Amino acid sequence: MEGNILNKINEPKDLKILNNEELNLLGGEIREVLIKKVSTTGGHFGPNLGMIEATIALHYVFNSPIDKIVYDVSHQSYPHKILTGRKEAFINPEKFSTITGYTSQHESEHDFFTVGHTSTSVSLACGLAKARDVKGTKENIIAVIGDGSLSGGEAYEGLNNAADSGKNIIIVVNDNDMSIAENHGGLYKNLAELRKTNGMAENNLFKALGFEYHYVEEGNNIQALIEVFNEVKDTNHPVVVHIHTIKGKGYEEAEKNKEAFHWVMPFNLENKEQGIIDFPESYTDIGGKFLVEKAKEDKKIVAITAATPGPVGLNYFRGEESLKEQYVDVGIAEEHAIAFASGIASQGGKPVVSLLSSFIQRTYDQLSQDLAINNNPALIMVSWAGINGGDVTHLGVFDIPLISNIPNIVYLAPTNKEEYLAMMEWGIEQKNHPVAIRVPNGDVISTGIKVEASFNKLNVYEKTIDGSDVAIIGLGSFYELGKRVHEKLKNESGINATLINPRFITGIDKELLTELLDNHKLVVTLEDGILDGGFGEKITRFYGDKEIKVLNFGATKEFTDRVPLEELYERYHLTEELIVGDIKNILK
Amino acid sequence: MEGNILNKINEPKDLKILNNEELNLLGGEIREVLIKKVSTTGGHFGPNLGMIEATIALHYVFNSPIDKIVYDVSHQSYPHKILTGRKEAFINPEKFSTITGYTSQHESEHDFFTVGHTSTSVSLACGLAKARDVKGTKENIIAVIGDGSLSGGEAYEGLNNAADSGKNIIIVVNDNDMSIAENHGGLYKNLAELRKTNGMAENNLFKALGFEYHYVEEGNNIQALIEVFNEVKDTNHPVVVHIHTIKGKGYEEAEKNKEAFHWVMPFNLENKEQGIIDFPESYTDIGGKFLVEKAKEDKKIVAITAATPGPVGLNYFRGEESLKEQYVDVGIAEEHAIAFASGIASQGGKPVVSLLSSFIQRTYDQLSQDLAINNNPALIMVSWAGINGGDVTHLGVFDIPLISNIPNIVYLAPTNKEEYLAMMEWGIEQKNHPVAIRVPNGDVISTGIKVEASFNKLNVYEKTIDGSDVAIIGLGSFYELGKRVHEKLKNESGINATLINPRFITGIDKELLTELLDNHKLVVTLEDGILDGGFGEKITRFYGDKEIKVLNFGATKEFTDRVPLEELYERYHLTEELIVGDIKNILK
Repeated sequence: MEGNILNKINEPKDLKILNNEELNLLGGEIREVLIKKVSTTGGHFGPNLGMIEATIALHYVFNSPIDKIVYDVSHQSYPHKILTGRKEAFINPEKFSTITGYTSQHESEHDFFTVGHTSTSVSLACGLAKARDVKGTKENIIAVIGDGSLSGGEAYEGLNNAADSGKNIIIVVNDNDMSIAENHGGLYKNLAELRKTNGMAENNLFKALGFEYHYVEEGNNIQALIEVFNEVKDTNHPVVVHIHTIKGKGYEEAEKNKEAFHWVMPFNLENKEQGIIDFPESYTDIGGKFLVEKAKEDKKIVAITAATPGPVGLNYFRGEESLKEQYVDVGIAEEHAIAFASGIASQGGKPVVSLLSSFIQRTYDQLSQDLAINNNPALIMVSWAGINGGDVTHLGVFDIPLISNIPNIVYLAPTNKEEYLAMMEWGIEQKNHPVAIRVPNGDVISTGIKVEASFNKLNVYEKTIDGSDVAIIGLGSFYELGKRVHEKLKNESGINATLINPRFITGIDKELLTELLDNHKLVVTLEDGILDGGFGEKITRFYGDKEIKVLNFGATKEFTDRVPLEELYERYHLTEELIVGDIKNILK
Repeated sequence: MEGNILNKINEPKDLKILNNEELNLLGGEIREVLIKKVSTTGGHFGPNLGMIEATIALHYVFNSPIDKIVYDVSHQSYPHKILTGRKEAFINPEKFSTITGYTSQHESEHDFFTVGHTSTSVSLACGLAKARDVKGTKENIIAVIGDGSLSGGEAYEGLNNAADSGKNIIIVVNDNDMSIAENHGGLYKNLAELRKTNGMAENNLFKALGFEYHYVEEGNNIQALIEVFNEVKDTNHPVVVHIHTIKGKGYEEAEKNKEAFHWVMPFNLENKEQGIIDFPESYTDIGGKFLVEKAKEDKKIVAITAATPGPVGLNYFRGEESLKEQYVDVGIAEEHAIAFASGIASQGGKPVVSLLSSFIQRTYDQLSQDLAINNNPALIMVSWAGINGGDVTHLGVFDIPLISNIPNIVYLAPTNKEEYLAMMEWGIEQKNHPVAIRVPNGDVISTGIKVEASFNKLNVYEKTIDGSDVAIIGLGSFYELGKRVHEKLKNESGINATLINPRFITGIDKELLTELLDNHKLVVTLEDGILDGGFGEKITRFYGDKEIKVLNFGATKEFTDRVPLEELYERYHLTEELIVGDIKNILK
């Protein structure tokens, strides 16, 4: 039976001639396709399984792309992709790589934005609605937003404005009672109350904000959804349709273990036990375990995550019953996380906020105003920072320009396990600065030599090899690249270059840099992030009026999208071969 | 009678022995002091007049600084300052300059944070509460937040988390039915409903989020406030006290014209008509008027402000009835403003978002993800950018590192009126990039020569004087400084320096910079912002491996607080004398 109905669906209008039975069969077929595809390639699993029926109903009722649907964070956009001309990319393994994991206006006229951060769909949809109104057209604008995404401030700003617009805008709240992890925050009690009362609870956040409100208990029932969507279609005012869906619907393991199956690595469908893959020891995990031990002995330590405890190494912490009062998941609310930490630190608490590089972008002003101006000693751990081959919305190359140009913050870049732990220890215990640590990427390097947890003298670099002619400053993860460049340069040119581990991203060691002027012709900086506004430029500025040359290596300022890491390293000259070649050119 | 009661109040506990009549008299005395002081020095007027009674009641009931009160944005903290040992700074003109316009932990043990951006108090208070809980103490934590500040996403993230904490936290919502301008957003309908029903309306945003809710209609009645504060004191769960106050209370003109008296320049109490001062023509105004004319002819233009139409020049726009549908005040919601604009631009609309430099900090991720990755042609006007002598929370020096290191955005720096208008024209009409314009500071310079509105060839600098030996690159407002440096250098050293107007902040003109290598020994960059991560460093990096020296002039990475501009210019060597001195030193 597979493919019987789906075979005939090449664009949304093909749906409109199906009867109820066929629509339901189609749902089953899409579910089968999704389970097979995502278990093979990995990807967002649970959120997409939950949204199959709603997506069918949306496209049955509305007229995409005239009517415009915006999917928040687009974790739940695979069924939409299947129904809008991209099913081959889910059925045919040779086509798997032709689509991204997110919506993309470059893929289809049914997508309007490239989206990979949460809580943005309502604001973007408000923009589509305003464009409609100033142009004088009449289409429906629909924003689909998950309950998890509702905890982000941007979503609320969007809702507050959407409610006030007085025009057609339909917000579909896809409530599966889960963020990536479980939900946290007062609003979730309200959603639970609304689910329990079939939408009738007296307290109603959406009504309070001014929306007309509809509730659909059977959010995986196509006919129930069609009925309500038909009711709100062509509305002349702001409407919320709150639908109760089941995350992971139709795949038993995913329904049971919603968090593990939110996003999956490839797994074996026959042997579901292997749904979660063991990774080798990582810096993130080392930090997470260290924090647990520290926190057991010091009740002032508070670990804070913004809905992603797993990727930042906080699952150990979260799992310890004795640390329950010291663990706070703020929901997808990075702004709050930083201000909250500043408040804790102001009174002698020891907050440790763990965020991914890409998501720390959501909290620049709080880093600056709530934290740095107040100079409170919170510790921020920045994971997944560095050049990666991932999706354009999840790059890790912008955190250095973002954090390091804010006064007062001390941003540290450890180069190995022992240094990393020493920096964490110092970051937690010191009382003088907001501190951030750029958690290294890649294989864990351990020297076995304990590093003193004292970084009180700021901006003192460590010279690890005292050489001449060329000085290599290798920041954080790229210190190892620096070592390889040193080695190759020695072998090929007989130059014994100086090698430096700067440790501090946020300032320069003027004394050491001045010393280098004596017997060096060239300084080379290596950083795992964009050059613009980054670390190397500060070194170059220092040397601007001096008799020495400087070469900065790092990423170009550009958005890359699923470009393999090797290719990026080639492009940016981030291999020892290319760097040594460039050095030789200069020394010629 | 003046000073009878206030004379005796040196700290909050002095309040506790007063009877009702004395408390009321004290309110009158504080009001008199405030009116006299703020009309003399300028400052936040309306918000403080409205909060006198609530502040007295808070300090009467609670035990500051053991109990901790956090004032949002601290526009309303003057009565608090008067009651916490700082009254002299309001009474004695010689002491006026001893306090800041915001709360400051460096001023008093009754202040916990330096705050000047909105919507942060609840999150900061959550931090104080968590620190209390991990330390095992029992004090009350109180956040005071105005209705205007409630439109910001950070406030909502804070409320959502505060409601979920299950511990003592008291949120006082100071509802005067005004932001800086009038309020916008669905939540304000709910506040209005609550005011109208004496807090009994069925829809209640705060209850929906999970708070115990109290309403005080007479928010300027000390006894009514004391009663409710006594009720909620030592609560063991999250509480909202919604108080209805009158902005500008007790000063008739301010009660009538709430927006004009939100923040005032010094004005004459005898002749209230002069409450608003006429400024000379400014770039902001020129842009605002230009936009009105454009928008009248093109319905696709949508002007967007985040609650500050006045300072960004949008009052003209706002005042035009025919442009009503093209004007959107999103409330204090900069994140929404940018995503909203991206949505409009994606469909051929022409959004123009006007923000202050300090507040664009609140929207880094939306600039990057919602706008730049999607490469939608919205125009962002950045006002009040540049080094200023203002409060630490309102500096304008960080926008270049923040905006210019995001790929795809074209950030322009006009140097005079004609160029400014040409850049606006181009920014509105072009379809290829998100564009930002750094509105110049200072006196308007007009050449009378029309500039072609074509900046399609990116990163082409303009060489305005073709000289040798030294090249001066003067960015935006500092192009004029560059001219003066050129002049002085010519007079004193006979050097005819090359002078360059780079126009583009976001990229370098490699061709022109390469040409300079032929007959220049030194390149000087001048920028009105911090050097770290800024414009000049990009030039220096380009020249890192070449035979030329570079000097970058701009601000040091530091938070400055009410340091006179002249002093900052001296400190950073931003006068023609100091720059020419530095140039001579290099050329020696």
